[in-house]
Amino acid sequence: LVSKLPDVGTSIFTVMTQLATECGAINLAQGFPDYDPPQALTEALARHARISGHQQYAPMPGLLRLRELISQKTAQVYKVPAPDPGTEITITSGATEALYAVLAAVVRPGDEVLVLEPAYDLYGPAIRLQGGTPVYVPLRSTDFRPDWDQVAAALSPRTRLVMLNTPHNPTGAVLTAEDLGQLAALLRDTATLVLSDEVYEHMVYDEQAHHSVLQQPELAERAFVLSSFGKTYHATGWKVGYCIAPPALTAELRRVHQFLTFSVSTPTQHALADVLADVAHYQALPAFYQHKRDLFAELMRATRFELLPAPGAYFQLARYNQLSAEDDFTFARRLAREAGVAVVPVSAFYHHGQSEGLIRFCFAKRDETLVAAAERLQRL
Amino acid sequence: LVSKLPDVGTSIFTVMTQLATECGAINLAQGFPDYDPPQALTEALARHARISGHQQYAPMPGLLRLRELISQKTAQVYKVPAPDPGTEITITSGATEALYAVLAAVVRPGDEVLVLEPAYDLYGPAIRLQGGTPVYVPLRSTDFRPDWDQVAAALSPRTRLVMLNTPHNPTGAVLTAEDLGQLAALLRDTATLVLSDEVYEHMVYDEQAHHSVLQQPELAERAFVLSSFGKTYHATGWKVGYCIAPPALTAELRRVHQFLTFSVSTPTQHALADVLADVAHYQALPAFYQHKRDLFAELMRATRFELLPAPGAYFQLARYNQLSAEDDFTFARRLAREAGVAVVPVSAFYHHGQSEGLIRFCFAKRDETLVAAAERLQRL
Ligand SMILES: CSCCC(=O)C(=O)O
Ligand SMILES: CSCCC(=O)C(=O)O
Repeated sequence: LVSKLPDVGTSIFTVMTQLATECGAINLAQGFPDYDPPQALTEALARHARISGHQQYAPMPGLLRLRELISQKTAQVYKVPAPDPGTEITITSGATEALYAVLAAVVRPGDEVLVLEPAYDLYGPAIRLQGGTPVYVPLRSTDFRPDWDQVAAALSPRTRLVMLNTPHNPTGAVLTAEDLGQLAALLRDTATLVLSDEVYEHMVYDEQAHHSVLQQPELAERAFVLSSFGKTYHATGWKVGYCIAPPALTAELRRVHQFLTFSVSTPTQHALADVLADVAHYQALPAFYQHKRDLFAELMRATRFELLPAPGAYFQLARYNQLSAEDDFTFARRLAREAGVAVVPVSAFYHHGQSEGLIRFCFAKRDETLVAAAERLQRL
Repeated sequence: LVSKLPDVGTSIFTVMTQLATECGAINLAQGFPDYDPPQALTEALARHARISGHQQYAPMPGLLRLRELISQKTAQVYKVPAPDPGTEITITSGATEALYAVLAAVVRPGDEVLVLEPAYDLYGPAIRLQGGTPVYVPLRSTDFRPDWDQVAAALSPRTRLVMLNTPHNPTGAVLTAEDLGQLAALLRDTATLVLSDEVYEHMVYDEQAHHSVLQQPELAERAFVLSSFGKTYHATGWKVGYCIAPPALTAELRRVHQFLTFSVSTPTQHALADVLADVAHYQALPAFYQHKRDLFAELMRATRFELLPAPGAYFQLARYNQLSAEDDFTFARRLAREAGVAVVPVSAFYHHGQSEGLIRFCFAKRDETLVAAAERLQRL
């Protein structure tokens, strides 16, 4: 058996979480909170687990009640026309399934897919599994925002899809309304589609706003926009995400989704629907996470790491050249073993795998976890 | 946007369930129970929903505790060496995800995949999405078991995979140990793999036994064997399945699974692990379902449907030629509207879509549901 993905190993998140467990390291590697979802949500799951009839298949596109609430929330948050729950919203097994399903639905052998790097590790392999070719464009090394001239140069008549991710994993970079306008201008009169991964939509700091592709009408009409309840509700293990896209695109997504997982946990969807109307939860998220980012930055001032700006998402990049000249993988392994803190080497987000001397910390952790991790790092 | 699956509509199960809802028909179409999972299981989900730390990502291959219990159960039930939880068992978002992930992991453009028809509706489209070609071999019209000479004739050096499904959906046919031996002989000295969908493993009647591909060593060493907690625990809406395969095959499956859904609901996996050691539950399933099959058959004697043998799974095929000469889709639609009973037209399981004058009833329903449905059918 010859592998279809011979160069793909176990995902970096699995590798680093395993290493953290082995070393008893504090896990600031894989992106997940070490606190719980809101109690109203976990109680809702407990309640729906016991309701007769809520344990069988959900409708293939998702519970209508949940899709209706997503529609209302989207209209309120982004001041856009409410997406139609019937034809424009699909519930998926995490944003991961949505990403894969969109690629499987629209990328054909020979198609090019534009990927801004660094990028989430699944993009490249998932594109290649469809017979597509990822075309990598580096983000600017200053602020990790796109250089639209470079994007323009990389676009071709074979570009089926441009993949966006804002707020960005691993850099935290946030696209501006102007960025979206630039892309819209580049794609005008092309048949190129957009996949916008916006799972960190509620994690933008310093009074800035998340600009959703849904708010850029010229992009929205050609875009699949993804979000994730796991991120917004501190429930990464529940694996529920969703995709908003115009009817023609949603139809193609569902054609694949119905064969990929068919539907998503019914009691879990009911539980999410019970809490989604509570705007206070997600309105509090920017302050909640900004506090953690700032606390971590403050604690890290006593170390020899150099922190990069972290305008969004729940990740903090850091340069370690004052501590070591090792490549980031070697350094990350040593950090887990010797300092007892697990992180992600940023080279895992580059297809060429070259170290840029950067590591990623996840700060979605209790304050005491961040304090304990920083204490260990201060000793280096 | 030109569809990659232009000929694929909404899956028949969605279509018929929607029609049932519209018509107020009793839904004997989509395969799901109208009773609940064991109370111990729903209580376990309610419990784990509230446990701190059980709401974040499960390990990518699944909770180790659940994989260990699957290993033990498999060894006990099939009298085979216990599969290694570390390298041979993967938890998936339903057996559906496992099916798709196996196809994505091993089928390349130009590969042929042998499909015995009638077949579950996702097989053909999911094979084609990988660039593969489904090669259809009809099951024998007498007993819906394979004609191994026809299978032999359809095999070629390009056959990457043979898809099995036992007990079989929609016909209930059950492969014998001899069938498996025949296939083993045909595949000897080839590189052809096997995907065996055994989600109805605990639903075989009349003192017969399910013969798992795991029990046929020559097949097991080249096979992905799938099962589903949704089927075994009356919880189709929980979407948890699993795949057992030798380490080299499991490695390929996981390469794709990690990008397809990454992991499966953590609290749900914990809940399943809590009940899996209770052998009484699945040992009782054959009698539980045989009673339903026999009750339904008895009730149907007062109708003009001709029932076919139903040796396994929870489906009953019926011929309706004494009632109508319509094609099965037209007849099924009329049955939902006029008789108030929704069923699945069996042509949905054939790639050519031709009516064989057969419909499928799902008898995984409370006795009173079966009585009420039969009363409606008796009036025809
Ligand atoms: C699916 S595990 C990875 C979680 C995550 O998004 C990250 O750590 O970047
Ligand atoms: C995923 S919905 C279909 C359920 C099923 O297996 C069937 O009805 O055949």
